[in-house]
Amino acid sequence: MTKATADPPNGRQLPTAEQLRIWRDFIETTHALGSQLASRLQTECSLSPGDYAVLLALTEVQDHQMRSSELATHIGWERSRLSHHLGRMERRGLIRRQECATVPRGAEIHLTPTGDEAFRAATVPHLRAIRELFVDALTPDQILAAGEIAAALRTHLDAQRREE
Amino acid sequence: MTKATADPPNGRQLPTAEQLRIWRDFIETTHALGSQLASRLQTECSLSPGDYAVLLALTEVQDHQMRSSELATHIGWERSRLSHHLGRMERRGLIRRQECATVPRGAEIHLTPTGDEAFRAATVPHLRAIRELFVDALTPDQILAAGEIAAALRTHLDAQRREE
Repeated sequence: MTKATADPPNGRQLPTAEQLRIWRDFIETTHALGSQLASRLQTECSLSPGDYAVLLALTEVQDHQMRSSELATHIGWERSRLSHHLGRMERRGLIRRQECATVPRGAEIHLTPTGDEAFRAATVPHLRAIRELFVDALTPDQILAAGEIAAALRTHLDAQRREE
Repeated sequence: MTKATADPPNGRQLPTAEQLRIWRDFIETTHALGSQLASRLQTECSLSPGDYAVLLALTEVQDHQMRSSELATHIGWERSRLSHHLGRMERRGLIRRQECATVPRGAEIHLTPTGDEAFRAATVPHLRAIRELFVDALTPDQILAAGEIAAALRTHLDAQRREE
């Protein structure tokens, strides 16, 4: 892409005050929405978003098992944070860790029947919360617009990553 | 609010497949956007989003100091996670903790000159990343729509919280 003139330093390259206000509203509101969903999941199903993300990931793979390193990449957590979290989930019987002697940090994580049951029990309450907090908040046109905005952001993000 | 007919069980109360697809695109894309911003902040300024959130909070309060319990509420983290994080920030000289003998978990957190400098140095790169990843991805109409969607979600969220 070529530009007729170079960007003035700290000028055209930075968002306007109005764009920045919209960005902050947008990112803070989606964050608050995530927190509210998390709080409902905790109250109604005794699962944290971390528990749910781990159980969802294990439910979706064959044999319901995954190496902890893959799981960390999949849910986007640092390995030390995940390791502490998995310890707590194991004590609650939701998963089982099988340590591998030759790969110290690469334990195999298994979904237990208790974990599977907890995940299944959370599905309907979780979907209901999405309906009440997201779908019911927006008009049908706004829902379509949200889909288009997500698609545009995703396309742009993927293009930027390819450039790196 | 009254309804003409009761919701069928697991029927009308749950999102349609299309609404669920849009929700997942929306929440996953905003999450990916946050991760990409975090990654740039780390590469360009050696700050994690947690560092940035702590420094921003301290910058915005009088005397640039805050109790750790207030800070935890402000940035929405559990106290144990924040405490570990503050330990790492203290070792890098970004903040200073002053323990309070009578309130074991209520240390006073102070912004240091090093922390202040790191925060200031991050401002322009951070704003530039918001421009490149959010503003440049959307048409002017989509930016306005994003603002309206955020406002509608926020209003609905606040109304739901008042009902609780």
